[in-house]
Amino acid sequence: MKYSNLFTKTLKDIPHDADSANAEFLTRGGYIHQEVAGVYTFCPLGLKVLRKVEQIIREEMEAIGGQEILMPAMTPKEVWVKTGRWDNFDALFRFKGAGDKEYALGATHEEIVTPLGKDYTFSYKDLPFSVFQIQNKFRNEPRAKSGILRGREFSMKDLYSFHTGQEDLDKFYEIAKKAYYKIFERLGFDPKITYLTYASGGAFSKYSHEFQVVSDVGEDHIYCCEKCRVAVNREILDDQKTCPECDNKDLVEKKGIEVGNIFKLGTKFSDSFEFKYTDENGKQNSVPMGCYGIGPSRIMGSLVEVYHDENGIMWPKPVTPFQVHLISIKGAEKEADKLYDDLKKEGVEVLYDDRDERPGAKFNDADLIGIPLRIVVSTRTLEKEGVEWKERDQKEAKDVALDKLVAEIKKYYS
Amino acid sequence: MKYSNLFTKTLKDIPHDADSANAEFLTRGGYIHQEVAGVYTFCPLGLKVLRKVEQIIREEMEAIGGQEILMPAMTPKEVWVKTGRWDNFDALFRFKGAGDKEYALGATHEEIVTPLGKDYTFSYKDLPFSVFQIQNKFRNEPRAKSGILRGREFSMKDLYSFHTGQEDLDKFYEIAKKAYYKIFERLGFDPKITYLTYASGGAFSKYSHEFQVVSDVGEDHIYCCEKCRVAVNREILDDQKTCPECDNKDLVEKKGIEVGNIFKLGTKFSDSFEFKYTDENGKQNSVPMGCYGIGPSRIMGSLVEVYHDENGIMWPKPVTPFQVHLISIKGAEKEADKLYDDLKKEGVEVLYDDRDERPGAKFNDADLIGIPLRIVVSTRTLEKEGVEWKERDQKEAKDVALDKLVAEIKKYYS
Repeated sequence: MKYSNLFTKTLKDIPHDADSANAEFLTRGGYIHQEVAGVYTFCPLGLKVLRKVEQIIREEMEAIGGQEILMPAMTPKEVWVKTGRWDNFDALFRFKGAGDKEYALGATHEEIVTPLGKDYTFSYKDLPFSVFQIQNKFRNEPRAKSGILRGREFSMKDLYSFHTGQEDLDKFYEIAKKAYYKIFERLGFDPKITYLTYASGGAFSKYSHEFQVVSDVGEDHIYCCEKCRVAVNREILDDQKTCPECDNKDLVEKKGIEVGNIFKLGTKFSDSFEFKYTDENGKQNSVPMGCYGIGPSRIMGSLVEVYHDENGIMWPKPVTPFQVHLISIKGAEKEADKLYDDLKKEGVEVLYDDRDERPGAKFNDADLIGIPLRIVVSTRTLEKEGVEWKERDQKEAKDVALDKLVAEIKKYYS
Repeated sequence: MKYSNLFTKTLKDIPHDADSANAEFLTRGGYIHQEVAGVYTFCPLGLKVLRKVEQIIREEMEAIGGQEILMPAMTPKEVWVKTGRWDNFDALFRFKGAGDKEYALGATHEEIVTPLGKDYTFSYKDLPFSVFQIQNKFRNEPRAKSGILRGREFSMKDLYSFHTGQEDLDKFYEIAKKAYYKIFERLGFDPKITYLTYASGGAFSKYSHEFQVVSDVGEDHIYCCEKCRVAVNREILDDQKTCPECDNKDLVEKKGIEVGNIFKLGTKFSDSFEFKYTDENGKQNSVPMGCYGIGPSRIMGSLVEVYHDENGIMWPKPVTPFQVHLISIKGAEKEADKLYDDLKKEGVEVLYDDRDERPGAKFNDADLIGIPLRIVVSTRTLEKEGVEWKERDQKEAKDVALDKLVAEIKKYYS
């Protein structure tokens, strides 16, 4: 895409209410646009990142047998009454429609997915199965903050699994846990700062598991075992003062951003909807469930929190909006135009800054936008039949010959 | 995908409130699941169709320069007050959040996209541009009806264009009109039943244009000119009793489903937000806008209304959830398993009915689900080293040799 065609522009000023790196850089870079506190539009650059995050998550959910569906945001009061959450789920946005019918905006979807699963499950032959969706959720947070880390409308991948019994749930839960590790690694989070964290199981079970990424802006306090990369959330520290996996007592306190969580729900929801199945002996049995969440927009914000410097974002390769940030310098426009066309033909994703702007402004925008690889075409580099190659996370640039460029780019992204 | 793994099942009974072919067949086929009147979950088969519809629309919007964004469903009261629509837009769902802040669910997005465009537009150099999104909209319809044709939550592609003046808008409007013709053709609608229909321009301009597909369940009465495939909506028939393009007076009344509409908005919305630009002479000018809608879920329902018989759906090839409905008959399971693997390797999208069911039940389900091509593997066909090939819209089946099957499938879908 040509930068001159992109309708967003980078902004020099820090938004007055930007309380975090992701709010500042994503807004200034033209990735997101705040509509009201906690509610954002994803502009073209932002949507590209979000879609890449979603696609990685989708692939790993499908790899463990998850079937993608799309549930509505509008949910009727009745289902929330059935589970007892209409009156005590503070974060629900409630509203009325024609005929005084009452609804809630989906803050989570157990109340929809459980009766849905029930309608298609008759016997043990129909179990186990798991379904997921990637969709916007709504939560009436008293205070929205930290850009797209804690919003009132935000994207969520939620997978729900349905089982013949506890053993079957336990087995799938471990499979999902492994898929989560893989997702965070594929998204570009350094495994060294990603902790499987034991947390409260709430009303459902003793523990749940969070995936926490270490960051100073994190809201969670986690106690980390450096031996097995497992942590304990402060909220259960009284119960669990040692590493739950190796009994290490030497836990290190850190701040973490919760980037995912997995829960064993037991039969709380299936019981509310009288969701049973007939087993091999004709007996009616309960259906234990699990739920597994990751918020793609929160992931995007977390990646910025972890990967930035004072000049802007430093996207990990798997989620960068474009692979190459191509810049033309006055006098080399024609050659840069040609290179842009050539790279596109080779299937390279290019953001081409073709504006009539001074080099310094273009370089600053490239640092702010944060694409991992910057390629500059100037009369200087053309004299040597090459381009300037600079990686966002390296200080030094180097020259690369034009005829080797595509191969080098493909190697860099392989 | 193996049918035995799909969590949905086909249903024999017609849903009690199914008032249309799309509600009946999409529900019975396991495409959609009603959660409350006018609000549906898209199950795996349904989501596959919806995504194909969306992708065709997306490609054509990008082809005319549309930049994809994603606006929120939660919109603050203030922007609706600015345009005067907070109090008189009946279909708005209104609700309150923390601190008694008031919101509406997005029923359309002029109120969000106009200030968004304004924030990035400074001079004539930044115009024209167009942005679009594919996202769920919410309308407080007094009566939801006709399955996914008129829902309370439904998907929508809405493109908005911003211009330097009327002439620029007029030019883009014609380009968008052509893109719309192309979209409906690519989606599989017979051009012979798709009418560009002159309709009321509402508060914005004299006429708007709808795209109407002829169907008995259509809510609109249109007067069609068979010479130039243009129609006039009854709502403006008093003003316009002849074909607006050829002055033909012999218009034929038909019922139509509105599958798309395009509007010239003029400066109504840009004026409300004081959205101006500086022209070449340093003068402040107004920004005329256009808006262009197509509802992917309504398209999906309309396709079922137009393309079905008494046994089920007959998907047009471009939007079928799978290309091949493969059925194994008792005794040929092993060979069918192998064919399933082979077809997948060749990149063919296959729904494989591998259940231990009687052939009649499998054939009925195939007719209901409506994939254009059914392939049956049985001991009879294997004797001739072949399979049975039956197209959903043909009465007769034929045998095709196994070693020619992939080529024949690719030819059928080319």
